[in-house]
Amino acid sequence: MVSAAAAGAGADGEAQALAAAQLIGVDWGSSGLRAFLIGADGLALVERATAQGAATLAGADAYAAVLDETVGDWMRARPELPVIACGMVGSQYGWVDVPYAACPSGAPALASGMRRTPNGAAHVVPGLLQSGDGLPPDLMRGEETQIVGALQLRPELHEGACLVLPGTHSKWAQLRSGRVERFATHMTGELYAVLRQHSVLGRLMVDDAAFDEAAYCGGVEAARDFGHLGMSHQIFAARSLGVTGRMPHTALADYLSGLLIGHELRAGLAWRADAGLEQAPLALVGSPALCARYQLALQRYSGVQALTLDNTAPAGLLCLAQAAGLTAGVTQKEYA
Amino acid sequence: MVSAAAAGAGADGEAQALAAAQLIGVDWGSSGLRAFLIGADGLALVERATAQGAATLAGADAYAAVLDETVGDWMRARPELPVIACGMVGSQYGWVDVPYAACPSGAPALASGMRRTPNGAAHVVPGLLQSGDGLPPDLMRGEETQIVGALQLRPELHEGACLVLPGTHSKWAQLRSGRVERFATHMTGELYAVLRQHSVLGRLMVDDAAFDEAAYCGGVEAARDFGHLGMSHQIFAARSLGVTGRMPHTALADYLSGLLIGHELRAGLAWRADAGLEQAPLALVGSPALCARYQLALQRYSGVQALTLDNTAPAGLLCLAQAAGLTAGVTQKEYA
Repeated sequence: MVSAAAAGAGADGEAQALAAAQLIGVDWGSSGLRAFLIGADGLALVERATAQGAATLAGADAYAAVLDETVGDWMRARPELPVIACGMVGSQYGWVDVPYAACPSGAPALASGMRRTPNGAAHVVPGLLQSGDGLPPDLMRGEETQIVGALQLRPELHEGACLVLPGTHSKWAQLRSGRVERFATHMTGELYAVLRQHSVLGRLMVDDAAFDEAAYCGGVEAARDFGHLGMSHQIFAARSLGVTGRMPHTALADYLSGLLIGHELRAGLAWRADAGLEQAPLALVGSPALCARYQLALQRYSGVQALTLDNTAPAGLLCLAQAAGLTAGVTQKEYA
Repeated sequence: MVSAAAAGAGADGEAQALAAAQLIGVDWGSSGLRAFLIGADGLALVERATAQGAATLAGADAYAAVLDETVGDWMRARPELPVIACGMVGSQYGWVDVPYAACPSGAPALASGMRRTPNGAAHVVPGLLQSGDGLPPDLMRGEETQIVGALQLRPELHEGACLVLPGTHSKWAQLRSGRVERFATHMTGELYAVLRQHSVLGRLMVDDAAFDEAAYCGGVEAARDFGHLGMSHQIFAARSLGVTGRMPHTALADYLSGLLIGHELRAGLAWRADAGLEQAPLALVGSPALCARYQLALQRYSGVQALTLDNTAPAGLLCLAQAAGLTAGVTQKEYA
């Protein structure tokens, strides 16, 4: 199943986009892929999405078939366009095992670390590995490309910034001189999902309840003010408040969400301050709905206002393709 | 299925225990029940266990039937023995809804809060509710009885102590003057279970691996030294260390266990110190295997050595039965 959204509606809009494209880009994560025709400004002219993520695929042939089903028509219409992919497609369990680039790293290092898929159809961006400092290593695949895109779209992030990419595994990144200097994963989204679906906390929660802002912000503030009592302690309140009738069951899920995101901010904002980036821009990169949820938490937590950026993967993919010299021969086709 | 263990083996040992018993006690939690013939010293003379916990039962008849299957022969042989139960059997979803006693609370308040089951067969101990201080309420059911038992068995805990009852939902309790003054739940065991079974962290882990003490202690120390980086960040290392080959997959589960228990200690030991109980005894109450795991963590975390107590529920049940005047008419039968 391929779902498509084109800037210009219909076949005519897509043909026009195809003519203008500089690149076919694919953000290919664990649970899905998003493919883009990308223009010279780094924006997506057309987007197609499928649920055929790397976690659902095994073997090079399966990946090749999905790529062909998803963007094969674009590749045949514009065979000179480079195809660049990022995300878990490049993991050791993906289509091609692309070794991680080491932090600190920027667009040049990422571009030179790209590898071709076995069939030669696409170039795949490396993920980032952070190690050293006596701490366990940390990993990202896909977010490095979004970070490169954010730097392209917002030059004021170049000198120094802290980026937050919320999600199943949120990534916090410290940027300096246009490079990712350090980053940290927070498993906030996955913690919420497993606690909601598989723990005693989910039992009192109500599906399809409307967003309860007061409960959500209460959770954020509890993490801020009493986080020293421990996250594994505080989350139990998402049960005890319900059992004792002190919070409606419709509010418990948002309270838990606020607690978990509040704990992410508690650790992340301190980590940012320790790095001397408190005065540098803070930016949220991700879907508007999730960024709005984090923005609200940030404001409640400390009054901080973050920049927000939607999908920056296309800009990142174009930047990396250019840095690798892959777009040198591409010209805009005349649209007839 | 009732499994039994008697101090004296066989039918003769059980008959002797039955003659000496002062009380039939039942520790009836969510996932199982343990029934005891309890002697005048508060120790279990015979124990029987089944998996028919409160989470598996619905309706008064179901509870009555399980009680009869488990200890009906004891009740018929010694009809004058009181039957006392504690745990989730007394919750709003259990056999009889026994309102929580409010903290601070000790044996007299718990004894006077007991309620009879609808069929009159047993008395059920209330749980404890902590509220106030602008914090969410906290709850326990069953552990209050173990705490009363620990106080009976170890008088040195009476003046002031911190008790830790590790488990699915660990409970930390501050005791003063023989009462529970404050307590806090930590969902450590359940967090471990849901992360292991349902999150990406479990995928690299190996079932039936031998205990890896170095990995476990490494997790404890990471929580102690870098816990400010956030638990939801640190647990990701139980994946990244495996993906990068820096830790054998057989060690990842114990590393995660150490991290989660380390975070419990981080919060719990600070909470204990804030309450001025740093010089008072610290005691672990629970199964020897789990207490040993926590004892090791405590030693690594801060060199603290805790007292350890195994099953203290029988002593607690006897103390509460006595405080409620239920054992006044019970004499020891002569064993013929």
